Amino acid sequence: MTLANEIAEQTALFNNLRLQNADPAEVEAAKRKLGELKKAQGVLNAKEREKKGDSAEGEKKKERILLKTPKGTRDYGPSEMFCRLHIERIVKDAFALFGGSCLDTPVFERKDVLTGKYGEDSKLIFDLMDQGGEQLALRYDHTVPLARWLAMTGGGGQGKVWQVGKVYRRDQPVMSKGRMREFMQADFDISGTFDPMIPDAEIVSLLCTIMNNLDLGEYTIKMNHRKILDGIFTVCGVPEDKIRTISSAVDKLDKLPWVEVKKEMTEEKGLDSGVADKIGEYVKHKGGPELLDILTSDATLMANKSAKEGVEDMALLFTFLRAYKVLDKISFDLSLARGLDYYTGLIYEAIVEASAPPGFKADASADSTPTPKPKSKPKDAGEDEEVDESQVGVGSIAAGGRYDNLVGQFASAAASESKSSKKSAASTPCIGVSIGMDRIFALLWPKWVGLGGRCKDTMVYVMAAGDGLLEERMELARDLRAAGIKTDFLAKKKPKLPVQFAAGEKDEVPFAVILGGDELKAGLVTVKEQRWEFKDGVKVKVESADKGTKVKRDELIAWLKNSDVWKTWV
Amino acid sequence: MTLANEIAEQTALFNNLRLQNADPAEVEAAKRKLGELKKAQGVLNAKEREKKGDSAEGEKKKERILLKTPKGTRDYGPSEMFCRLHIERIVKDAFALFGGSCLDTPVFERKDVLTGKYGEDSKLIFDLMDQGGEQLALRYDHTVPLARWLAMTGGGGQGKVWQVGKVYRRDQPVMSKGRMREFMQADFDISGTFDPMIPDAEIVSLLCTIMNNLDLGEYTIKMNHRKILDGIFTVCGVPEDKIRTISSAVDKLDKLPWVEVKKEMTEEKGLDSGVADKIGEYVKHKGGPELLDILTSDATLMANKSAKEGVEDMALLFTFLRAYKVLDKISFDLSLARGLDYYTGLIYEAIVEASAPPGFKADASADSTPTPKPKSKPKDAGEDEEVDESQVGVGSIAAGGRYDNLVGQFASAAASESKSSKKSAASTPCIGVSIGMDRIFALLWPKWVGLGGRCKDTMVYVMAAGDGLLEERMELARDLRAAGIKTDFLAKKKPKLPVQFAAGEKDEVPFAVILGGDELKAGLVTVKEQRWEFKDGVKVKVESADKGTKVKRDELIAWLKNSDVWKTWV
Repeated sequence: MTLANEIAEQTALFNNLRLQNADPAEVEAAKRKLGELKKAQGVLNAKEREKKGDSAEGEKKKERILLKTPKGTRDYGPSEMFCRLHIERIVKDAFALFGGSCLDTPVFERKDVLTGKYGEDSKLIFDLMDQGGEQLALRYDHTVPLARWLAMTGGGGQGKVWQVGKVYRRDQPVMSKGRMREFMQADFDISGTFDPMIPDAEIVSLLCTIMNNLDLGEYTIKMNHRKILDGIFTVCGVPEDKIRTISSAVDKLDKLPWVEVKKEMTEEKGLDSGVADKIGEYVKHKGGPELLDILTSDATLMANKSAKEGVEDMALLFTFLRAYKVLDKISFDLSLARGLDYYTGLIYEAIVEASAPPGFKADASADSTPTPKPKSKPKDAGEDEEVDESQVGVGSIAAGGRYDNLVGQFASAAASESKSSKKSAASTPCIGVSIGMDRIFALLWPKWVGLGGRCKDTMVYVMAAGDGLLEERMELARDLRAAGIKTDFLAKKKPKLPVQFAAGEKDEVPFAVILGGDELKAGLVTVKEQRWEFKDGVKVKVESADKGTKVKRDELIAWLKNSDVWKTWV
Repeated sequence: MTLANEIAEQTALFNNLRLQNADPAEVEAAKRKLGELKKAQGVLNAKEREKKGDSAEGEKKKERILLKTPKGTRDYGPSEMFCRLHIERIVKDAFALFGGSCLDTPVFERKDVLTGKYGEDSKLIFDLMDQGGEQLALRYDHTVPLARWLAMTGGGGQGKVWQVGKVYRRDQPVMSKGRMREFMQADFDISGTFDPMIPDAEIVSLLCTIMNNLDLGEYTIKMNHRKILDGIFTVCGVPEDKIRTISSAVDKLDKLPWVEVKKEMTEEKGLDSGVADKIGEYVKHKGGPELLDILTSDATLMANKSAKEGVEDMALLFTFLRAYKVLDKISFDLSLARGLDYYTGLIYEAIVEASAPPGFKADASADSTPTPKPKSKPKDAGEDEEVDESQVGVGSIAAGGRYDNLVGQFASAAASESKSSKKSAASTPCIGVSIGMDRIFALLWPKWVGLGGRCKDTMVYVMAAGDGLLEERMELARDLRAAGIKTDFLAKKKPKLPVQFAAGEKDEVPFAVILGGDELKAGLVTVKEQRWEFKDGVKVKVESADKGTKVKRDELIAWLKNSDVWKTWV
């Protein structure tokens, strides 16, 4: 994409945000980015002029650079990271709560490890330049590296493993919705042979725990079973070799109305119209456990082995989900198909209200009433495509499923001819979930920034009244930090007291500790507690006539840790 | 490097570890890797045979892949990650203690951002393939992306920022010493205009806090000042244009004896022998604040403006370091030069005993007594170089310095002609430290793994005596997790009790909660506390005749949280 295009896109985004009365911080960020792009344009224009004017200052031109992050990536500054770390903490705490242990794999893999795992989307893989060694590519997800690791090591047999890190896709980015080329996924996977549907229920319960703790508002876990879907397709008359492609058409029902999906099935993919209509009847079903009765009473469907196994799995799962007390969050949805080829059983995704694109009524899935078609085009890696951000939703914020054969595929592709090793490797069934951390951030950030711009949780700001007392401030900061109290002070020799207060207030530090020469000689310091409150939507310091409390310097740490303010903060 | 070479290298490493009586886990890991390589070799040989036999099964051949991580990278499995997360926690806690807030930048940058920042080492940059868009490269460190971010945003004016993440160098790896192509650095930087040497002292105090908390044994912070070094070189008669190259020769004094360094200066770099000898006299000095007196009384040196400023800075710094109570950790070392070009003031690095290569006496720096020359070659990106791992030390485990001009360079290279923006951008002095997390791991891991192989801190394992009680186990696990208690159970329908105990004991879970049908009807569960101790160096469960405690199911959470065992664990 040219810089001119980027400016046009950014202008559209900025105007759009203003019209939508979006969060001021978001508008501000868009405006700032636009400014940067225009500035860069100015530099380029100047270079252009320089060139034409034949002032051949090659050296000088060469050192001009465009200060921006690569397309589809961004920096997260301190306030944003404070929010992201909060999200990470919730997710990682839940992973530990459910007995997970951590795995870390390299950010790039040997290219052949990724080859043939992502179907059409393989074109989105970021390749590294061949610099005289291995062919490498950035990881596309955490699932394939995990499967590679399990195939190499066995992963200790059976276990729960989590991974939090960035993955890479050369897709068309929609930055404001958290759809990026570099994005963070948090994965939790259970590998190994266990009794049916128990790991599946654990993962669903984990996902609900995370969704509850993130406080994203109402959410739904949509789920379906690949064996049921395959059974439906077979029973409806889809030829064996068309099942995957028809499945990926069905998967679009959360973004497109049925008439469009049917058109894709019949016109693009050559499916008989009658067969498509039969599928349409099935995939409109969604609901709770009662859907099991409808399916079980469908004798044609139950005669299909795959469908029957899938329905039995779902029945067992619902029993477990009742024990986990999460049934009210579940929507058993026969239109859910998920794109990836490697799923073999249960599949699911978590959606919140903001997941759907604007103007699209998710409930219209199998209804033939026309709904506005989102303008977003299908994925493409071309640099010149543009996406109308206002027409794109955040999408599912977590998704996953059971993939019982992926580890076995790796092991058999690498292992020697011995039958025994093939057998042991093939028997590593897995189920997992990937959580889209950037999408969660896109949803939480507007609320978060409205609560004030804190970017750290410093507890004490050490100040001096009068003569600087620099070394005394250093000594006190050192002592407080040695006691585990997050402390800071202004790195100036003789700063004025109001300047020091302002520096501490920027981070809403709850305790100001003030040193004075005479007081210090008497072994005393002054502590002022600081509080903040919202006034007309803005966070302000609560003014107080309190002159502060004199505390013995030697007793300061104990005094702080026993104060009421401390207890409400830590 | 060919697979045959890799096998040879791995064989050497494995034999070496055995001879050194290295930690058994390390030996085992080396053995496992060797096995994998040999297996891969077998597959390749089979492919070769297949080819010769003309059995043109192209398809089948194509799917064979070599299951390994890219050269210079590795997976960190659950036990290793448990140790790494412990290290990260200590480092990040210290960053927060000192008032830092977090920044996250993309793992790759536009190539021109990295160009011209790393001197000769630029050849070690990992480039991404040009797939029809921007020229991108993996970040080489956190400093340059930080400077780019500061130049773009101003970073909120003045602040303390930390970054923890992976960086990439196509160097010759020495895996067992934590020298890798993908490695994790934790950086803390202070940017903005403050009073002299206060941020510098903060960073040194932070580094000491981290070194203390990591418990790596005795350590030293070696420090020097670029202005003093430059003054020394000028006073000794080094021509202006040779200062940086002579400085990088001096930097090798921690790895090479003086005679070798002098040879490099005179024979390779054409310095006059007398000039080199004068330098040799200066750079042998190391010690504490008393070194200031030696320098101050050197009238020739003090006549040099640069040297005088540097000595004044160091005098002020020592005053501050006394207030921070870290003077005993400091070695003012005139031979420390650090490689990077962008340093402008204080420079430092943290070393521990294992930092030096074996057989090299660090104290011999300016001594002409020959010491064994390590066989490790200088950095080279070639794939076929080999490194004798036994001759390489871990090196400095943290390092950094002041770089007052880097942000300004970015800003002036990108900004338009307006003088005002150039001026504001140029005035962002910075100082920072980078901590080598993989080197710390390489030092801590042998000790850590000796303390037992825990890879998570699950507190409760829920079991059933008798008839499986699967849903009851799920319900209890759900309730405990909802109360924030890390809980697990065996994902089997009707597992035997000893199997469940064994599963819980693998992770040294301190509480076994056992459900029984009749007891549960009476509203009771049984809790057994479990303890571990070392016997002959091996961690074993303490056998106890204790039949467990009957606790009301409704009171279980409160009971657990009030137990003595709980308090010692959490």
